[in-house]
Amino acid sequence: MTTDDLPRVRLMPKANARAIRHGFPWVYANELVTDRRTRALSPGSLAVLEDSTRVEMGVVAVNPASRIICRMLDRDPAAVIDRAWFAARIARALELRKRLYDQPFYRLIHAEADGLPGVVIDRFGDAAVIQPNAAWAEVLVEELAAALIEVTGVSTVLKNASGRTRVLEGLDDTSAVLRGVAPAAAVPVPMNGATYMADLTGGQKTGLFYDQRPNHGFAARLVAPGARVLDVFSHVGGFGLAMLAAGAGQALAVDGSAPALELAEAGADAGGMAERFAIRQGDAFDVMAALAAEGAQFDVVVCDPPAFAPNKQALDAGLRAYERVARLAAALVVPGGYLGLCSCSHAADLANFRAASARGIGKAGRRGQLLHTGFAGPDHPQLPQLAETAYLKALFFRL
Amino acid sequence: MTTDDLPRVRLMPKANARAIRHGFPWVYANELVTDRRTRALSPGSLAVLEDSTRVEMGVVAVNPASRIICRMLDRDPAAVIDRAWFAARIARALELRKRLYDQPFYRLIHAEADGLPGVVIDRFGDAAVIQPNAAWAEVLVEELAAALIEVTGVSTVLKNASGRTRVLEGLDDTSAVLRGVAPAAAVPVPMNGATYMADLTGGQKTGLFYDQRPNHGFAARLVAPGARVLDVFSHVGGFGLAMLAAGAGQALAVDGSAPALELAEAGADAGGMAERFAIRQGDAFDVMAALAAEGAQFDVVVCDPPAFAPNKQALDAGLRAYERVARLAAALVVPGGYLGLCSCSHAADLANFRAASARGIGKAGRRGQLLHTGFAGPDHPQLPQLAETAYLKALFFRL
Repeated sequence: MTTDDLPRVRLMPKANARAIRHGFPWVYANELVTDRRTRALSPGSLAVLEDSTRVEMGVVAVNPASRIICRMLDRDPAAVIDRAWFAARIARALELRKRLYDQPFYRLIHAEADGLPGVVIDRFGDAAVIQPNAAWAEVLVEELAAALIEVTGVSTVLKNASGRTRVLEGLDDTSAVLRGVAPAAAVPVPMNGATYMADLTGGQKTGLFYDQRPNHGFAARLVAPGARVLDVFSHVGGFGLAMLAAGAGQALAVDGSAPALELAEAGADAGGMAERFAIRQGDAFDVMAALAAEGAQFDVVVCDPPAFAPNKQALDAGLRAYERVARLAAALVVPGGYLGLCSCSHAADLANFRAASARGIGKAGRRGQLLHTGFAGPDHPQLPQLAETAYLKALFFRL
Repeated sequence: MTTDDLPRVRLMPKANARAIRHGFPWVYANELVTDRRTRALSPGSLAVLEDSTRVEMGVVAVNPASRIICRMLDRDPAAVIDRAWFAARIARALELRKRLYDQPFYRLIHAEADGLPGVVIDRFGDAAVIQPNAAWAEVLVEELAAALIEVTGVSTVLKNASGRTRVLEGLDDTSAVLRGVAPAAAVPVPMNGATYMADLTGGQKTGLFYDQRPNHGFAARLVAPGARVLDVFSHVGGFGLAMLAAGAGQALAVDGSAPALELAEAGADAGGMAERFAIRQGDAFDVMAALAAEGAQFDVVVCDPPAFAPNKQALDAGLRAYERVARLAAALVVPGGYLGLCSCSHAADLANFRAASARGIGKAGRRGQLLHTGFAGPDHPQLPQLAETAYLKALFFRL
């Protein structure tokens, strides 16, 4: 299919064509002329975007059902979106990751910033997991998988359909094996000297998040030999295992999910650290209160909760929850010890999250020096135009 | 001297006593009752701060000549500010740095956040440089130096009086040797696998800045073996030498200061990298334009200019200057190469600086993925209440 065959869609005069020309990757539904022909395009259709004066702006993916009605795929209006096009994008992304990491475990494609809007691909050695979170990627997922194998040489390609934004795109939540065979067991992933176990088919709750890698690494630097460390909202043991690998004497992981804690234990075992690793399953707030009641104290405490403020409506309640986490956690830190607090909430910006954290520390009767502010690692690049994508914040305090 | 002997100073009812109780470390002149007795206090006097209802809040340093009229030294109103007090603060700060760094080269005291308001101490192995940037520290500098030697074992203590804020405190700019003997030559400083040469007596222009250490480290990760790299506003070679140590084939350092470039060359020599290191002295804007005219291209370009927006009045002009740096530098980066842009301007916040950088990259006809946002290293802690102290921002783009 050449671009001559592609339908055309047109910006309304009020649309911010300038921002799009300067790199903003989306057209909102109220910015596009949505005549009957455009409304009739099937979700994920390709089209050539024109400005209001009919100057071509590039090839876009159209989803009339989504608030983000167009996603810019290529600023060349003559671009052909085929397997070779996917391969070029993936090769460029791979070059960056090879520069950054010695081993093939990383986020390979981080959506818009890697030139594949709405597409996330995580690599786990010989296997890759695609999250097609926009309709166009669902339509073209076979070409994408073929290009992925061609460029990276992975033998297994899985599709994970658990992404929350798929609903907004009108997509189902049915995951699938696209190529090869799904791993029969959890896959060992080396990061920061530790081994993590990733369940590639268990969905979000038991997968693995690469974004915290540099923050895990920073926490590891704070560990003195033999230190007692606490990893709250541990998931598969992200901070706890990295701190154990750095020489902690004892790590306690707290999470509500039994399957996640099982993977954390398997990771500790794989790293030969099982006897220094303990778990407590339960509500993190309750467990922190119970630990305080027991008089437990730790040299390093890190809390990496789920998004308490996923949207603007939830901001106030979310910030109160972050404050509460900080208050409960600070009470468990020895004098002169370290506290790491994370937020993966889009709506809570850095200043808000820092203030909530400082309030919580203060309410625990403690004071903190802020040592380090970390974000997602460089395998999670951002478009400068989408600063909001800097969802992940990690603050490290000394109390 | 016991605190019973100390004069008392009192907050006005309108003062934000709550903020001070929650950790804000300063009292502004318009918040304090400045009767004749308070106005007569000599700069740097110690006093007990009371709130407007005469409840004691702590021991403060008073400078009636400064807009920051009080700096909180100790929230215990009975604290005695003597050599032992200094030693305790320094010991606590030292513990953190020993945790973070294998070798004794770091910022040891970072002012308010390390409990010594207005005091900066950088350690260079066996020597330390104190910047007493507040009057109280100037008054007590002998006790401070004695405590510093007692806790760290350094043999040389220098006083650097070039800090800009000393003028605001009514202090002179006369540097001095407080203990030991000033090094006769530049001191070699190991960081990120490179050796830097620090001239401890040459003042700001030829000293060494530890704050960029993690950002130097990130730049080094972007270097492929044999890469050509450019370090603009190089000072003593911060980014360039770290990238050479990481395997760059050729580094070019650009700076306006001949003494700084001499130290950079000495550092390259000390690291056995002299033949891969070149310099160009001159105005950085002019040199970048000249390099572009010559058709020069680099795999990695990093620009670490002086503060273009040191205050709010200079913000607009400063942001234009950052945009210009980004535009000129982006033109020198190979396709798929990397660009690091730094700002040490208090007034330009992260969002403003990021936007200016993105505009500049766009005006060069390029697009960038933002890979990493870095700040000053953890030997430069902040009080959460003084977010403004996060002056240093480093953005790394892939073009």
